This record gives sequence, C-alpha cells and structure tokens, in this order.
Amino acid sequence: MLLARTIEKIGELDRKAMAQAQARVDSLLKPPGSLGRLEELAVQLAGITGRLFPEIKAKSVIVMAGDHEVVAEGVSAAPQEITWQILPRFVDGTGGIGVLARHVGAKVVVVDIGVARPVDWPGVVVRKVRPGAGNIACGPAMTREEAVRAIEVGIELAQDEIEQGADLIATGDMGIGNTTPSSAILCAVTGLPVEEAVGRGTMVNDAVLARKRRVVAEALKVNRPDSGDPLDILAKVGGLEIAGLAGVVLGAAARRVPVLLDGFITGAAALIAVGLCPRAKDFILASHLSEERAHRHMLAALGFKPILDLNLRLGEGTGAALAMPVVEAAAKILREMATFGEARVSSLDKEKLL
Amino acid sequence: MLLARTIEKIGELDRKAMAQAQARVDSLLKPPGSLGRLEELAVQLAGITGRLFPEIKAKSVIVMAGDHEVVAEGVSAAPQEITWQILPRFVDGTGGIGVLARHVGAKVVVVDIGVARPVDWPGVVVRKVRPGAGNIACGPAMTREEAVRAIEVGIELAQDEIEQGADLIATGDMGIGNTTPSSAILCAVTGLPVEEAVGRGTMVNDAVLARKRRVVAEALKVNRPDSGDPLDILAKVGGLEIAGLAGVVLGAAARRVPVLLDGFITGAAALIAVGLCPRAKDFILASHLSEERAHRHMLAALGFKPILDLNLRLGEGTGAALAMPVVEAAAKILREMATFGEARVSSLDKEKLL
Repeated sequence: MLLARTIEKIGELDRKAMAQAQARVDSLLKPPGSLGRLEELAVQLAGITGRLFPEIKAKSVIVMAGDHEVVAEGVSAAPQEITWQILPRFVDGTGGIGVLARHVGAKVVVVDIGVARPVDWPGVVVRKVRPGAGNIACGPAMTREEAVRAIEVGIELAQDEIEQGADLIATGDMGIGNTTPSSAILCAVTGLPVEEAVGRGTMVNDAVLARKRRVVAEALKVNRPDSGDPLDILAKVGGLEIAGLAGVVLGAAARRVPVLLDGFITGAAALIAVGLCPRAKDFILASHLSEERAHRHMLAALGFKPILDLNLRLGEGTGAALAMPVVEAAAKILREMATFGEARVSSLDKEKLL
Repeated sequence: MLLARTIEKIGELDRKAMAQAQARVDSLLKPPGSLGRLEELAVQLAGITGRLFPEIKAKSVIVMAGDHEVVAEGVSAAPQEITWQILPRFVDGTGGIGVLARHVGAKVVVVDIGVARPVDWPGVVVRKVRPGAGNIACGPAMTREEAVRAIEVGIELAQDEIEQGADLIATGDMGIGNTTPSSAILCAVTGLPVEEAVGRGTMVNDAVLARKRRVVAEALKVNRPDSGDPLDILAKVGGLEIAGLAGVVLGAAARRVPVLLDGFITGAAALIAVGLCPRAKDFILASHLSEERAHRHMLAALGFKPILDLNLRLGEGTGAALAMPVVEAAAKILREMATFGEARVSSLDKEKLL
C-alpha cells in the first residue's frame, strides 16, 4: 500500500552533503555563524536534498480543507459553512493564503478532502474521503481505513507537485473547528494535560474556551486513542485535513523535498506523520510559532525551532508562505555568496576569534 | 541647514489613515487579529504613508561604509582593510547583502562615507566625509561639523532613492570595529553599564571582549559625551557610517517613507536620529533582533519590537533585507485581501468571540 511504501522510502539526511555545506558556509564572506538560522537552514537543505547547492525553483502550498462535526458542541465562533464558502477565495487570491502565496511566488493547491458540503468550485481539487469528520465528543472522527485513505491523498498530491517541479512544499489547513481535534491529538501523542493543550482558536471567549476543554477531555475519554498508534489517534480524534497534511509531510519527505509546517493544525499533522515515521522529522521545517498557545508545546514535542514569530493564528498556510523567502535565502547564501578566497578578501584573525 | 530643515519636516503618523486601515484590517476575511504582526505593520504603514492602501513598488538598501581608528586598540578580529575590500562584493552581488537584496528585489546603494583608504570601486557612491573616524579611546571620532555633514549625506542619499521611486528604505552598515562605537553610543544615550552594552561583535574571544569593554569605558571617560546632546555623542564616540545612517532614517521619515533598521550598528544610528527628532521613531521598523547581545537593550530603549529573530549578526543590511518581504506582505493584506462582505462569506459569531 502507498502509505507503507512511502514510509519505507523516507531516508536519512545526507551527512556528507551537510558536512560539505557546513564547510562552504564557514568559508563564505562573513564572520563564521553570523548568518545564524540561515546557515543552519542551508545545511539542513543540503542534507535533505543531498546537494551542496540546493536550489528552490518552484514552491507549492497545499491547503487541505475538511469539516468537523464537533462544531455541534459549540467549540468555534465561526459557522461551519465558512470552510466551504472560503475555498474559491484561496483560488482567486483574495483570501489570506491567496494573497501571501502570490506575494512569495508560490502556487496554491486547494483540496477538498473532507468538506461537509459538496464542493464544485472551479480550481479546487476534490479528493473528498468523507463529508466531514464525525463528532469526536461522541465517537471516532473516521474509520482507520478512511484515515489511511486521507493520508494517501496527501502523499499523492505532494508527489504530484514534486513531479511538476516543486522543490519546497508548504502545508496549510482550512476547517472550522479544527483546533479542537488538533488539541486532542496533542494530548493523545504527548500526554499533555487538556488545560495546556487547548487554546482559544479563532479567538473564542472564556465560556467557549471552557467548553472546548471539556469537549477535548470528553473526546479522549470516549475514544480512548492508543498513544502508541498514530493511525488510531488520527482516526479517533483527528480530522480529514489533518490526515491529508500528514500525508503531504510523508510524501515530501519520501522524495527528499523540504516541507514547511504552518501552525497548530499542520503541527498536529506533523505529530501523526512523525509518529508513523520518526525519520520524517528531518525533512520538516517549522515556519512559525503560532499565537495559539499550545503550539509551543507541539513544537517542543517535535523538537522544532520556528523560523518566524509573528503572532499569526490564521492557518491556511499563511505562516508557511511567509517563511518561504527565508528558506530560499538560506539556499541562496550557499549558491550565490562568494568565499573569502574567491573574493580575495583578507581572512579574519583566528587568534582573536571565539 | 539641511539637517534642521529635515527634522522640521518630520511629521506625525496619520491617525485618520490608521483608523481606516484598522477598520479595513478588522473586516478582512479572517478572524480579527489573526494575522498578528502583519496587521500591526499594515496599520503603521498606513499611518506613515497617510494612505489606506500603502504600496511598496521599489525598495532600496543603503549601506554606509566607514572605518574606525579604534581598531588600533585590538577590539576586532577582522583586519581594517576588509571594510575597503568587501565593497565591490556588495555591488556585484556576491557579498551577503548583495545576495539577499537581489533575493528580495531591492536595489543596493553602497556608500563610502568614511572608509580609511581611497575608494574607486565601480558602482560605489563616494561621499567620504573623512577617511575613518578617530580613535575614540584617545579622543573624538570626528568634529561636530563632520558629524552634521555625514548625517546630511545620509539625508541626501535617502531622498535621492525616494525621488527615484523607493517606498521602503533599509539601512545597512559596513565598518570593521563599528560595534565598539555603537556600544559607546548605547551607553552614552541610555546610561547602560559598559558590561551590558558591549558584546562580542565579530565573535571575538574573551580577551578581546574584555579589551573592548575597557576601550568603551575609556572612550566615555576621555570624551565625556553629553547625554542630552545626540550630535555631541555622535561626534565624540560615533562613526561616519553611523552618522550617515542616522541621516538615512531622518531623510526617510521626513518624506513619510518607512525605514527598516538592520541590527546593532543601525540601531545606534537610530538612537541618534530619535535623539535628534523623537517623532522619527514612528517611521522606523526594527527588522530583527541581532545576536549581538546588547541589541536587545537598544531596541528596548527605542521601544521597538523586532520583526525577525534569526540569530543574525552580520550587518550590511542583511536582516533588513530579509524583513522586507514581511513588510510588503503587510501592505498587501490591506490592498489585496477581500473583506467578509466583498467575499460573501458568513461572518463570525460575535457572541462567542473575545
């Protein structure tokens, strides 16, 4: 099956390319280490791609959309139909990710993987696995088979983009209510208490926040996800777009293409992907630290250091799009900066350096 | 005189444009506040430019280069000639700022305002006020007249760029040894103890760091800069490129064009500019938090929140260039995102919102 084959294909970072890239970075026309995170990213890109001079020529943001019957519990301030209504705005470039992806020169792939209503918006890729995840406060989000199918949709779409030339993939989500299953996944994977794992999502008030916490606790109690079985967690307390995004991560990793997480929901997808294949972690870049408070715990559990911290909490891939120019800059310092030797500039005094 | 006329022209933020921009931002197709810093930047850009839909069509990075005789005290691990040697690499795009400015689509203006050696590199603008600042451990960096002249060079160059269409200006520095005068300025302006204000600059070892601290203390003792007189501080313990960059800030502010600081040296320039004209502060954006440890204190003194935090400490305007796409993104959400009404998407439930 595609999922198993994909996991099998995910390799390790290319340590030789990384050592070469580190040596090159250290010889560039600047004090050692002075480009900070750019240098680390450059070396990681070399390890991911296996190339001393990684190049980013085409970028895609894959936005997965799905609904969540758990909104019936009153956990969101946004009506469910927005998931469906907003999709054409991502395609025509007037929604948040439409604007920011155009700004950074990335293609947007908008996918209905689990929207409740039928979607026939022009330009939206329809790969619906089921119309909305079940109400996790009462039972599972989906069957284990549906979870696998949704992951495989993500794998296929990531690989389609890579076939078409994408060498940087970003993840994005749309799904009213999807901070609730993401918090449930965070609890199930890490054992974090519900109070720590549940935040305000779309800026809900104290009453809704308290309700969200009760709903997440209830979802965990009713479904009893097995913390050692990522597919069980995903099927019981996850969502279709979360499953699809986990697939995007695995699909990109299997092809040695760097994949940028966005915020809290794509972070939940990464928890599942890394649970299924710990080696996938090395191919993931965390674009930003979300304003959703539990995102910090999620990144810590994954061992990721975010590139940006702009108090974003929109989702849609907006933070991932904003981090793309930084990742490209990292590739470019390797490719385009001269070394001290090439530029015939005097070297630094090693005696005085740290 | 140009400096006085420029200061006089610096106005206040346009509160009406800001209120309109805030209202537009709040009506865009996203939960209120969910684009975090982008929303704040969008409103600030509206206030700076006086336009509800600020547009960034052309960007310039002005890199001022100057030398510092204080390197004779052994405060840097880099030989002084690098200031001179590296300038053509900024022009031909193989030095750090050359690569990153090209990446973000910005023009680089490289200026010799005080390089010790004669500069006749093609493409470098020569506006030398004097060949290097004096050794501040023994006496003043320059005369008060030279300080004013260097500021005016910066004003003129910023205004030249703006005449040619730039609507976003970034500052950059090049000058071996220039963290030492920048620390001295920080001490003189804020009263911060020398131990807090002096960092490792180009990654110097403990012995050099201790020497830098002694040199900064000595510079303050010998010169006795008047904390209430920014020109006195600049002339006594500053540098030519720092003066020029203070002028760039003032020149941009006077034309209501946003100006991005880079790191520690451009921050010292901002301390002088804001000392000369506190209203200038509103026209400045802090691009990043430098790895140079005292930069934190500098930004706190200025009341700025950095956009990026990527552990950079190269200078040259590299951090400012990397922040440009974020500033442009802020302008674009105002110009290009649809509102809920325009997109015919259901509104959020105000009862449930914070």
